[in-house]
Amino acid sequence: MAVYTEVTDEALRAFLSDYALGALLAFRGIAEGVENSNYALKTEAGDFILTLYEKRVDPGELPYFLGLMEHLAGRGLDCPQPVPARDGAALRTLAGRPAAICTFLPGVWPRRVRPSHCEPLGEALGALHLAGEGFPQSRPNGLGPQSWGPLLERCRPDADAALVAELDAALAGILAAWPRGLPTGHIHADLFPDNVFFLDDGRRPRVSGLIDFYFACTDLLAYDVAVCLNAWCFEEARAFNVTKARSLIRGYESRRPLSAAERAALPVLCQGAAIRFLLTRLFDWVNTPAGAMVTRKDPMEYLHKLRFFAGATSAGAIGG
Amino acid sequence: MAVYTEVTDEALRAFLSDYALGALLAFRGIAEGVENSNYALKTEAGDFILTLYEKRVDPGELPYFLGLMEHLAGRGLDCPQPVPARDGAALRTLAGRPAAICTFLPGVWPRRVRPSHCEPLGEALGALHLAGEGFPQSRPNGLGPQSWGPLLERCRPDADAALVAELDAALAGILAAWPRGLPTGHIHADLFPDNVFFLDDGRRPRVSGLIDFYFACTDLLAYDVAVCLNAWCFEEARAFNVTKARSLIRGYESRRPLSAAERAALPVLCQGAAIRFLLTRLFDWVNTPAGAMVTRKDPMEYLHKLRFFAGATSAGAIGG
Repeated sequence: MAVYTEVTDEALRAFLSDYALGALLAFRGIAEGVENSNYALKTEAGDFILTLYEKRVDPGELPYFLGLMEHLAGRGLDCPQPVPARDGAALRTLAGRPAAICTFLPGVWPRRVRPSHCEPLGEALGALHLAGEGFPQSRPNGLGPQSWGPLLERCRPDADAALVAELDAALAGILAAWPRGLPTGHIHADLFPDNVFFLDDGRRPRVSGLIDFYFACTDLLAYDVAVCLNAWCFEEARAFNVTKARSLIRGYESRRPLSAAERAALPVLCQGAAIRFLLTRLFDWVNTPAGAMVTRKDPMEYLHKLRFFAGATSAGAIGG
Repeated sequence: MAVYTEVTDEALRAFLSDYALGALLAFRGIAEGVENSNYALKTEAGDFILTLYEKRVDPGELPYFLGLMEHLAGRGLDCPQPVPARDGAALRTLAGRPAAICTFLPGVWPRRVRPSHCEPLGEALGALHLAGEGFPQSRPNGLGPQSWGPLLERCRPDADAALVAELDAALAGILAAWPRGLPTGHIHADLFPDNVFFLDDGRRPRVSGLIDFYFACTDLLAYDVAVCLNAWCFEEARAFNVTKARSLIRGYESRRPLSAAERAALPVLCQGAAIRFLLTRLFDWVNTPAGAMVTRKDPMEYLHKLRFFAGATSAGAIGG
């Protein structure tokens, strides 16, 4: 669940008195989300999401995240827009945590990805990359290639030795082949299905919004495509669905065509994205006490994906 | 958290096609709640709550719960009103579970109870008891006095022996003194703060709705008052706040005056309510695997309350 910090009604009322949103009408914890506490907030001004940033978020990075959302929304992208209080500031404090109110987005995230989700997803990702142009701040990718070696070191004492040996070899190969000179920009870096809302009449789903920009950073644009190929294009039985991948890339390229170098780099970028999620899940797995109240995600799902992408001989084999 | 069953968007869309609620606009899991899966649902017709009934709810009892909510709402009580589908039935099936859509209630449940909450709470409880009159179905209280002995037996092998001995003695005393012949009716039986929504301008809170009728049953009306005295009138430091209790009872009696016999029975009814919550928490405590993803509530809180009420020499000492 994703309510770590309880907010008393007195504290909430005092917090809302800084905004011009009218009276409080409802306030419910939202089950989705992992890192932060999220509440559905309804006031006389409408529906909003109130987020309390928990300890895994560095408060110093919040101005980048909120500023990026503000910039993207200003460029017409459907994403949460930080709502400023009367003094103009959107980033505030509530219950001892940094907190912000953002606009509510309609839509439903797909519990089961269908091929028809993937082209609109790709279009939305391309639109995100274009809309990010001109945002002047930057944030290094804290979970980019330079972090993977140290993450693996921290897993080494507690993880299975054969797995660690396989990851040592895979990581060396990925880092040696990591592309240089590809176009960079603001990327989402975590665009999993639960971060993409769709409105769907049962025929063609359309994206109604992208959420959760708290891993966003400045990195290779094509790496974001690689994250999505990992997150959206495998079936539950672990088979790679190349139809989904082609749809995703077609949608993306309708907004922003990939260069030949980006396309050629897709297999190694996909391996990198696979090892990134594998390592953070493995780290959480070996470092979560057995009784903790969190859902540990299975790292092995990403070992399978890593092996698949390592065997991809060309971008064409993975939909590019 | 309270999302045990995930609903795919195809299944949700098929489910909603039976209703006249317009297109689906949003669907988010709600963190609150323990027994069932709850989703905030927004359609073109407005805001609703979709509940999937999980395995601790007996499907055979759902018609009583939904019928009671329907009856109460029809009598003007602010409570969730089951929304019938086009065929007139509100109780349906989704993702293999019994499921129902209910109306959305505005308001916020109080994370910290203030004395000013207690009179309107009492008024709302009295109004609930009056509104329940004439509802023709009945449901025995499955967690009433006859259940406490068997519950204690099931805890005996795993619970602390001194605690069990204390509860044996307390229970014998409670059952021997349990009142007969008091007025009965439809009671909520679980009216804790998270089941009562308030709208609050910062001066006088007013109740905007009562929710979660899934422990409702036919039992002594004054027992519902006793549950509320347990749930609303102790401070975090465990002191009984007689001002809150007096406010609660004053509010209740503004709608439904207690008889002399009900008032005299309050101390033992409060002990009964305390042992009821103590025993179910103790049972969950000794029967929950250490790694399970649920929050175990501390049974000892209710041992303290039981001792307090056992020492109350008169109804006056507890606000009556």
